[in-house]
Amino acid sequence: MSANFRSDNENPVAPEIMAALDRANVGTAYSYGDDAFTERVKEKFCEVFETDLEVFPLVSGTAANALAVAQTTPAYGAVICHEDSHLHTDECGAPEFYTGGAKLMTLAGANGKLDATSVEERIADAGYVGDHASKPCLLSLTQATEFGTVYSVEEVSELAQVAHEAGMAVHMDGARFANALCSLGCSASEMTWRSGVDLLSFGATKNGAMMAEALLVFDADDAEELGRRRKQAGHLISKMRYVSAQLDAYLADDLWLELAAHANRMATRLAEGLEDAQDVELVYPVHGNEIFLRMDEELADILREDGFEFYGWPGRAGLYRLVTAHCTAESDVDAFLDAVNAADGG
Amino acid sequence: MSANFRSDNENPVAPEIMAALDRANVGTAYSYGDDAFTERVKEKFCEVFETDLEVFPLVSGTAANALAVAQTTPAYGAVICHEDSHLHTDECGAPEFYTGGAKLMTLAGANGKLDATSVEERIADAGYVGDHASKPCLLSLTQATEFGTVYSVEEVSELAQVAHEAGMAVHMDGARFANALCSLGCSASEMTWRSGVDLLSFGATKNGAMMAEALLVFDADDAEELGRRRKQAGHLISKMRYVSAQLDAYLADDLWLELAAHANRMATRLAEGLEDAQDVELVYPVHGNEIFLRMDEELADILREDGFEFYGWPGRAGLYRLVTAHCTAESDVDAFLDAVNAADGG
Amino acid sequence: MSANFRSDNENPVAPEIMAALDRANVGTAYSYGDDAFTERVKEKFCEVFETDLEVFPLVSGTAANALAVAQTTPAYGAVICHEDSHLHTDECGAPEFYTGGAKLMTLAGANGKLDATSVEERIADAGYVGDHASKPCLLSLTQATEFGTVYSVEEVSELAQVAHEAGMAVHMDGARFANALCSLGCSASEMTWRSGVDLLSFGATKNGAMMAEALLVFDADDAEELGRRRKQAGHLISKMRYVSAQLDAYLADDLWLELAAHANRMATRLAEGLEDAQDVELVYPVHGNEIFLRMDEELADILREDGFEFYGWPGRAGLYRLVTAHCTAESDVDAFLDAVNAADGG
Amino acid sequence: MSANFRSDNENPVAPEIMAALDRANVGTAYSYGDDAFTERVKEKFCEVFETDLEVFPLVSGTAANALAVAQTTPAYGAVICHEDSHLHTDECGAPEFYTGGAKLMTLAGANGKLDATSVEERIADAGYVGDHASKPCLLSLTQATEFGTVYSVEEVSELAQVAHEAGMAVHMDGARFANALCSLGCSASEMTWRSGVDLLSFGATKNGAMMAEALLVFDADDAEELGRRRKQAGHLISKMRYVSAQLDAYLADDLWLELAAHANRMATRLAEGLEDAQDVELVYPVHGNEIFLRMDEELADILREDGFEFYGWPGRAGLYRLVTAHCTAESDVDAFLDAVNAADGG
Repeated sequence: MSANFRSDNENPVAPEIMAALDRANVGTAYSYGDDAFTERVKEKFCEVFETDLEVFPLVSGTAANALAVAQTTPAYGAVICHEDSHLHTDECGAPEFYTGGAKLMTLAGANGKLDATSVEERIADAGYVGDHASKPCLLSLTQATEFGTVYSVEEVSELAQVAHEAGMAVHMDGARFANALCSLGCSASEMTWRSGVDLLSFGATKNGAMMAEALLVFDADDAEELGRRRKQAGHLISKMRYVSAQLDAYLADDLWLELAAHANRMATRLAEGLEDAQDVELVYPVHGNEIFLRMDEELADILREDGFEFYGWPGRAGLYRLVTAHCTAESDVDAFLDAVNAADGG
Repeated sequence: MSANFRSDNENPVAPEIMAALDRANVGTAYSYGDDAFTERVKEKFCEVFETDLEVFPLVSGTAANALAVAQTTPAYGAVICHEDSHLHTDECGAPEFYTGGAKLMTLAGANGKLDATSVEERIADAGYVGDHASKPCLLSLTQATEFGTVYSVEEVSELAQVAHEAGMAVHMDGARFANALCSLGCSASEMTWRSGVDLLSFGATKNGAMMAEALLVFDADDAEELGRRRKQAGHLISKMRYVSAQLDAYLADDLWLELAAHANRMATRLAEGLEDAQDVELVYPVHGNEIFLRMDEELADILREDGFEFYGWPGRAGLYRLVTAHCTAESDVDAFLDAVNAADGG
Repeated sequence: MSANFRSDNENPVAPEIMAALDRANVGTAYSYGDDAFTERVKEKFCEVFETDLEVFPLVSGTAANALAVAQTTPAYGAVICHEDSHLHTDECGAPEFYTGGAKLMTLAGANGKLDATSVEERIADAGYVGDHASKPCLLSLTQATEFGTVYSVEEVSELAQVAHEAGMAVHMDGARFANALCSLGCSASEMTWRSGVDLLSFGATKNGAMMAEALLVFDADDAEELGRRRKQAGHLISKMRYVSAQLDAYLADDLWLELAAHANRMATRLAEGLEDAQDVELVYPVHGNEIFLRMDEELADILREDGFEFYGWPGRAGLYRLVTAHCTAESDVDAFLDAVNAADGG
Repeated sequence: MSANFRSDNENPVAPEIMAALDRANVGTAYSYGDDAFTERVKEKFCEVFETDLEVFPLVSGTAANALAVAQTTPAYGAVICHEDSHLHTDECGAPEFYTGGAKLMTLAGANGKLDATSVEERIADAGYVGDHASKPCLLSLTQATEFGTVYSVEEVSELAQVAHEAGMAVHMDGARFANALCSLGCSASEMTWRSGVDLLSFGATKNGAMMAEALLVFDADDAEELGRRRKQAGHLISKMRYVSAQLDAYLADDLWLELAAHANRMATRLAEGLEDAQDVELVYPVHGNEIFLRMDEELADILREDGFEFYGWPGRAGLYRLVTAHCTAESDVDAFLDAVNAADGG
């Protein structure tokens, strides 16, 4: 037996998306986004989000995040984000680089989430020293969070309101946007612009695309010259139709929601099984497709010997992460639970 | 009749490369380049270039160029390049951005090529004012050039020698590397590191890939922390196997050379036909897959009405570019020539 | 005999300004510009320029220029300037650095001046390739120019109009602003905001201050967060009163105009003498305090042996520059002319 | 009665330094540091620090710090520093800007000091995720710290060793270097390079200069092209002799040590008096010229009404700072103590 729970980005591309790439591979198409696929994708995003938004297809989530930051935060500005946010811990300083020197002001917060009071205090603190401190310009939330939890619509609204009152923009890092949306069961618009989100890094790669993300900007005015920023960063893909075709298939017939719903179901099944296990403790609520658990290194070693792959969390001894994906088999989940129980018995 | 001679990047992906993507889409693979495809690609590049080099798969040529510049040129440095180089005119300041402030020192030069004497003089000039001037750190050549011409091996060597004597590194922008190589008929190593090239932006997208380029660094010491630069720029693709699989197929069985040879043959056929035409003048030698011609706007309009697509060159009235590709049909070339001759007759 | 005509910045500080520093050195004063000297300087600038402007005292002209560029030009933007502008040739890439990657689009132009037609064409050129080119955001003029010539009020107006029509801002590098103003005999407002200048690097150091410049912004809206940019660049001087006290004394009782008028008179005297000399040719009109002349290296050597100091122009054999200053003695000018004539005779 | 304990940078320039400026103001001197004053300053620094170091005179401490960071830390790098360091909290992102995107990794630590164990752990943490995290390149210590405490020579050595073992450089922010040195009573070399410090921001402005700091680099190899960085940042002062003359006088005849010793004595006198006061609590050990105390807002208001000026610490209710300077009068100290005791009595 073996199964990979390391990361959703280690899984293959959904067959519907591969098929779309094949269909796109006919004849010539204007480059750099001036093609029919890209046009159609924009229309679909407008439909899904029920508003007239701007779409920038991209191939990496770090690029989507960093462009969102650069668009809203000058070199003398700051981004308020969670201390465990991907933006801060896993992008090798991309936000600082894209802005030419902005600062990330990080905050602690339970379950990987920011809370409105801390954000409010941080903004106030930054104001005391005037020009001597970087100016908070952007609040960035990850939805679902890096710990697999999900902000409620009310939580997003409250945080966004605090940010807007301080003249800041609001960004959502939606690398696992679909998983969060399925978890909440609300509409895409409710979870974003209706709650005050201004820019969204919309992820598709982890949920079944090959390399396709999109930076969505809900107010066209906020997107001014974002095209030039994308080009200057080397992220304007010449044969764009092949990025857009992925997004097109992803959004068609609710494929994206089906894929995420499956991943979430597998995570729930896994979590429920682990709750009953003796030597394993779930650390955060399981809202999406990520499970964080505490176990002995001994048990982790046994499971790995059994052929299961998963990450130990950097810098936190005893903390492990399991990620399910759009193509995770129920049998893999059950095999993992059996292995845990078998080890428990020993 | 209709045919698109606008740009090679408007053409579809070669079937062999699509097939490779399908083959790669099986099971899980470690992300961020820690996969078997990426490992194999590195081996193939070492073989093709007959040396132990470092490979950074990428999805955009601008990213490859900008990373090469950032790796060699600090903020206070300068890049010497042709005034018509893609680096200078078509990347929206990517080199300046990636370096955090380096300067492009541009030079004129016949047929889109730099000449060694001008480079030598420019280096000397920069030296007169000491710390008040940006320091030349990199010489960047485009091969084939933006005007479809090709540097001879001797020309590359001579330019590289001038640069090295001044302590500068040498970069080759090889967006159309394969076309240049087929044109010269030399080995990949002769055209690059054996002639003094230190870093190569190896292009595959224009010649039949979907989105696949690679930054090659011939001396591993020169590649230190390039991986972090790539990540910080958002160019470390998570599902890297799908970039590497393209490069893998591209290099297999000399596919890349066949594709480029075809494109070059079509350009030669087109050029030979145009040489005989009355109202059309070839402006540069045709070495690769690009043809620059001068004609009346009237003739250009007639050809466009006939269904042919091509670019008028920005800022140069009467200058037009035709590009052939790996999949250009002989019949399209002949139809274009017929249309020119028909218009001539009228 | 000996005299230094190398640069105005090699001359000492005017006694009135030294005296002002002594007067300022009493008791405590709030730091970072929150002092009475800085407040008074702002008032004086408003009076001199007949408008309600924003003032940022600084200690270096490069800082003033680079902050002006950063304030108006994003990383994806471009500055149109003369190919011989200090901004481009003598600031080691400060504009590129402060903007995080903007490009300088340089133009040739007679007598060190830009002409409106070339600027208009350059703007049009940049527009052809859309997001692939840096966006022209700022036009920068040097007044007096690097070659000692002066734009007329009409020329400034015409250039500014072209820039504004393209949505660009207009910056004037006034390292030798006072010399230009004395040369034109117009008002400070006519030479700047009334002619369309939006930001001015107002120089005082070369004309008798110790280290004192100011970035003036004529429309307060254009100065938003410039204070943070200044701090982030390390240019918010803690004991600001000592910068402001210099500017205060400089502007008092028309001292600045008297100092510049003297320097200009010495340059005129020198130029008139040189016009009569046989082996020396004046290269540019002498409007301010700089003289460019062509002479044999042999003659230059003789003059240097005689004890006169001056620069040979970098990269241009046979071109030499003489600069007069606020404290240049008439006898030094005459001695130089005598030496030239003596050498001529030989 | 009134006295200003807000900051040492609100105090006037020491008379010896004013006199030196007057003496320097004679005749011409080559600009940009090519003058006799700058040469002599370098010699003096070499003597004081007993080694052959490189000296970069500057006019701002933020510039000194930011240049030190830029020289050692690339865009993908990180600086480990205290969460309350000036570098992080009071420079508006200057380190991030000068590096084009490096990250500050901040640590808590008692009394404003970093401890070696925390630093070691932070370095290890950063290593877990490879290219996904910024690379720690520099350890920056403030001596004396932002809370007026001083690292012992042993503490500096231990921290530097941890950094060096990880391949990082060590920077000391010595805005109040002289105060720390007088407090420890060791030699300048012991407190710096002999303990592993590689670069030192040597402050003079707060201790009696007008605007004069110096970036010292103890190993000439580490200073390569720092001159270009300085110029590109606009910090190469043209009339450099006036910066160097300040440093020259500051170092002459141990003036700098006398000035700092006086400030420290005044702080000690103040601290001793406050220890006996009822309603006031000293928060940190008083090693240099800064005192942090906790008191009721009511008491603070009374003291301010009495004419005493001091800062409430941003974001920390009830925390106040008093700073003494080279020219603080004993009578001012005693008057403050009397006022505290008088208020206590009420």
